[in-house]
This record gives sequence, structure tokens and C-alpha cells, in this order.
Amino acid sequence: MSIRPETPCLLVDLERLDANIQAAAAHATKLGIALRPHAKTHKCPEIARRQLDAGAAGLTVATVSEAEVFAAQGFGDLFIAYPLWVDPQRGARLRRLRDIVSVTVGVDSVEGARALAAQVPGAGVLVEVDSGHHRSGVSPGDAGRLAEAAARAGLDVHGVFTFPGHSYAVDAAERVAGEERAALSEAAESLRTQGIEPRVVSGGSTPSARHVGTGTMTEMRPGVYVFGDAQQWELGATSPDRIALSCLATVVSHAGGNVVLDSGSKVLGADRAPWASGYGRLLDHPDARIILLSEHHAVVDWPDHTELPELGSPLRVVPNHVCNTVNLADELLVVHNGAVVDAWRVAARGANR
Amino acid sequence: MSIRPETPCLLVDLERLDANIQAAAAHATKLGIALRPHAKTHKCPEIARRQLDAGAAGLTVATVSEAEVFAAQGFGDLFIAYPLWVDPQRGARLRRLRDIVSVTVGVDSVEGARALAAQVPGAGVLVEVDSGHHRSGVSPGDAGRLAEAAARAGLDVHGVFTFPGHSYAVDAAERVAGEERAALSEAAESLRTQGIEPRVVSGGSTPSARHVGTGTMTEMRPGVYVFGDAQQWELGATSPDRIALSCLATVVSHAGGNVVLDSGSKVLGADRAPWASGYGRLLDHPDARIILLSEHHAVVDWPDHTELPELGSPLRVVPNHVCNTVNLADELLVVHNGAVVDAWRVAARGANR
Repeated sequence: MSIRPETPCLLVDLERLDANIQAAAAHATKLGIALRPHAKTHKCPEIARRQLDAGAAGLTVATVSEAEVFAAQGFGDLFIAYPLWVDPQRGARLRRLRDIVSVTVGVDSVEGARALAAQVPGAGVLVEVDSGHHRSGVSPGDAGRLAEAAARAGLDVHGVFTFPGHSYAVDAAERVAGEERAALSEAAESLRTQGIEPRVVSGGSTPSARHVGTGTMTEMRPGVYVFGDAQQWELGATSPDRIALSCLATVVSHAGGNVVLDSGSKVLGADRAPWASGYGRLLDHPDARIILLSEHHAVVDWPDHTELPELGSPLRVVPNHVCNTVNLADELLVVHNGAVVDAWRVAARGANR
Repeated sequence: MSIRPETPCLLVDLERLDANIQAAAAHATKLGIALRPHAKTHKCPEIARRQLDAGAAGLTVATVSEAEVFAAQGFGDLFIAYPLWVDPQRGARLRRLRDIVSVTVGVDSVEGARALAAQVPGAGVLVEVDSGHHRSGVSPGDAGRLAEAAARAGLDVHGVFTFPGHSYAVDAAERVAGEERAALSEAAESLRTQGIEPRVVSGGSTPSARHVGTGTMTEMRPGVYVFGDAQQWELGATSPDRIALSCLATVVSHAGGNVVLDSGSKVLGADRAPWASGYGRLLDHPDARIILLSEHHAVVDWPDHTELPELGSPLRVVPNHVCNTVNLADELLVVHNGAVVDAWRVAARGANR
């Protein structure tokens, strides 16, 4: 890099980003299903545009405010993959959204469906199904009853969706992809028994994406794949040479014979899954581990056989969970051929409502 | 609350906030030492002003950009409690700061001291000492040598400081306060052997603050005490009736017989210490536990003997680590007598550089 940006800051490798976007698009094309990437990972219209240009069918978002940000930027087909509780305030916002874009919403309860229908009559919905993550969603066999109730309340039931989040575990991806397929099949069949033909059968997470088969899902919604992160690295869903986002950090201390970096939890996020080997990885030093993370310090256990990098040295940190990292930043610095060529605003940062 | 704000959002109970500020001020007065609260917790000039009005001697901050935010708001005495690596860019910013306010910086290496002195000749510094947290700082017995090198480089050594962060553990606070006292005494003595009389001997964390004694420290720098959080609750450093910040959340799902809230890690932060009982607590339901936290979902294991709150109900969540929670928000809603009376901007949100 010609001039080193002040640290800590987030760098996006443009070539790797585009390669990740193309690879996922090609994978979906090969499966013959739609790709509707989750924009919560990048929150960035420039990246969403590249996903659409590569063939994505639309965007997934998590909140009404994320939908508002992307709608304002001209993205016209949005799925809010969340069982929203729609009170009058949120209802008014959804009605304004529906005036300008196509927006579909998740439902996982009869009460939630009725509240939505009262505010946004005729809204398009997908019934959320629990495929084993045990977060939200109904049992696959109950999807038909909920779909029927939603239709009776006046909603337009497009189909079913699930998030197989239990794929975020060691050696789980293939098994979980099977559970996802089984749950979505059962849910789709459950809708048919109520006379509702599912037009959309939607699943997908980054770890399980490569195990998605043909014949059940009509679309998938991975998010993290655009960047990759230390979780995907440690789960084997990506490799360091494909990771497109890192946090540039500076060595500020050698206290205790460790390397202490200025990239703490206020820039990386505090995520640490039980199976993670630390609080993040170093892109160019795969044997190093972040053993302690506080708000502005990352303490790195440095491999024995190598010398500590000098105080003031820059190092690239790979965060454990990139979605939370991006949500802490105001901008992403775009790197191409070793130089910062652009800065993209994280337009939907903090868009939680 | 008359009109319920859209969730998730952060609420500050004004009465509790002021009571916490007054209690810490009274404690410091009783000990006869200065209180220099860490502003990284609230990042909010309105709260810093209340701390100063209650007698605080100045503010502690973690970064140059936090110092810039508070300096611009008229706070004239700032300590950056961090071993900054001062390159020319950061040096220029520190010189501009020094033109308008009194600013002191941490050092924990000879190289760091020299880099600072090259950019900001005569800068005021405190030598950082490791009192057992093993993050940054030199051994207490090495403080004098570093102080002497810093003075020789042209810096103005005001004294020593430590952060006893290992007080964040079960039943550790009293023991750690003793280790803090011993480390600071040894460090102060180490400076004297080099002919440097420490004017400032600074320590303090929220868990250890109540065990601080007289005779060693000249000031303390707790931060979290203004709000409290689930960590302090579980460590016994506060009680639920004194916790001043909560995240208002909505029940969006009853999937799996649990309560699912719209307050995920993108609003609460993902912190979970090994000793924490979950990913946060519920202020009005002490037996409930957040057992799963994703970006926009908090799955709550609800106590067996009570009915689940209805879909759409508001609940107040106490985050595990409030400093990271506040850093995710653009504003804090101020509640007094059951009504939202103000909104304070988190002016230093994202001020990581």
C-alpha cells in the first residue's frame, strides 16, 4: 500500500471479493436455483450491486431499516428474512416500502401473520421453518397450518424459508444441509396439503451452501461468502487465500512477549464460538492466535519459532464473524493492486429496527 | 412509557444514572483521590458533563479520536489510557489536541516513548504497568527504567497507571484490588529510584473500585459504573435496581417454547465471558437467561413456573458488556418518570483510531 491508512480500519480486497461473488453465482447457476444473498453481511450498496450484476435474483435483509437503505439505493426486490412483529409504526414503514419495491416478509406465528396483515393487507410472506437451529420458525409439519392461517388473514403466501444456522459447527455442514433439505421438503409438502403451492423454497447459509442439492430449494441466501471470515476458515468453508476482508491493525506493545494489536472488540466484534481457536486469526500468520480481546487490544500468542513483528508494524486480522465487524465500521477501504482505490460507506450500519 | 419507541433501542434511566455518578464521586471523595471516569463506556458528552459536575477531575479515553470528540465538546483534561503507537499522522492529531486541551498519553515501551517524543516533544505521559491482567504494560519493577528513558527522550513523566482487568472474574475483585495496590506501589517506588517523583498513580476498574484503599492511588478510572451491566450484576459489583441502561426489545417469536427477542448481537454486542450465565439478562425477569444470540435474535430460556410474555410485548434486556453495546448505537433514549424525555447522541461511537 502506498500510504498506510490509520489503523484499525477494514480493508476489502477487490479481486477476492469479485471472485467470491462470481463463485457463488456460478454455484447457484449450476444448481439451477436463484441466489438471493444476505446483505446484512456487507450493508453496502456497492457490493450488493456487484452481486446483482453477477446474477443475484434480489437481496435478503434482516430488518425494515436495512430494507429502507437498499430500497433507497434502487434495489427493487427485497426479502426480510425475519419474523417481524409489525406494530402500527413498522406497518407504516412497510407500506411506504411496498409503494416503491417488492418486499416479502418472514412469519413464524399466527399472531405475527395477523398483526402484519392488519397493517399491510396482502403482504407477501414466506413461512419460516426450523430445520434444526432452534432459533425461530415452526416445525416443518406445522408450516401448512400457519400458511393457511396467513392466507386466511389476507397475506400472499409465496412459500417457505429456513436458516440452517446449526451448520456453524465443526464437521456439521453436510449433515445440516441434509436436514435443511428434509425440513424444506416436508414444509413444502405441508403447504400443498393445505392447497397452497410454494413458489419459493428458500434456504442456505455459507457453511452449508456447497452441500445444497437440486430438487428442493428454489433459492439460497448465503451472506458471509462475499468476504469469508475466521469462522468460515476454521469450519473449512473458505481458505485464507480467498478471504476478502481484513482489519488492518498496528502492533502497539510487546508486553509479556506477545504481540498486542490496536484491533479490539470495538472494531472486530466480540464473537467467539465455542469451537473457535481464538478471537480472530492473522491473515499472513496462520499459526498466531488472538488469546485475549478487549475493546482496543488484541493480544496475540505469536508462534515460537518466529520473531515478533516490530512495534508499529501493520498486520492483517481476520475477524471471527465478519457481519458484526462490518456493522461496527463506517466505511470499507477498497484495496486493488496493493493500493487503496476507494472507500465504500457501510450504508446500513446500525440499521437494527 | 407513553409512546413506546421502536425496538431494539437503548434506554437510560436518568435517576439511576445520576445516582451511580454521585455514588462513585462520593466514594472517591471519601478515599481522598481523584475520579477520572473512562468515557469509552458512554461516549456521550451529556454524561461526561454530569460526571464533571459531580466532581470528576477529568476524563479517561481510549483513543485519539475519542479525545478529539470530547475536546471538541469543551472537555479540557483528557488522559488517553493506551500505549499509542504514534506515527506522523497520529502525531499531527495529538499536536492539534495539545493546542486546545491538556492531554496525557500511556506508554509501555521505550520504542513507543521515543516515537511519541519525536512527534509530540514534551508530551505528558503515564507509564503503564501490568498488575496481573497480562494485556499491556511493563512489570512494576521495570517502570522506573521506562520512565527514565521516556524522560530522556524528552517526555514529561507524570507517573504510572494500571488497569486491573483481571477483576472481571468471579470472587476476584478484592484480591485483584490488592494486586493493583502492590503493583502501583512498586512502580511508584521504581520511578523514585530513578529520581522521578510520580505525581499521578492511577488505577481502577468498576469491579475493584469498592476495594480501593488509601495511601497508594491518587486517582481511579472506572467506566462501567455509570450504567452497570450484566457482567457487573453477575460479579456482584452492582444490583439490578441500580442498572441504568437497558435495551428495549420486542418478543417476536415463541418458537420452541422460548421467548425470542429482536435484540441480537448487532445491538447488544456478542460479549460472553466464560463465567457469564448467558448472553445477557432481563432486567425485570432475573431467572430468565439468553441462551442463544445471533445478529437479530436473542433466544430466552423462560422460567418454568411463569407464562411466556405475549408476542409483541416489550422487555428490557441488560447487555453483558455495556461499553460494546453503547458503541453499536447512534443514540441513547433518556427515560425519566416513565417517559422518554431526551435522546443523547453517542458522539464518540466508532471512534477507534
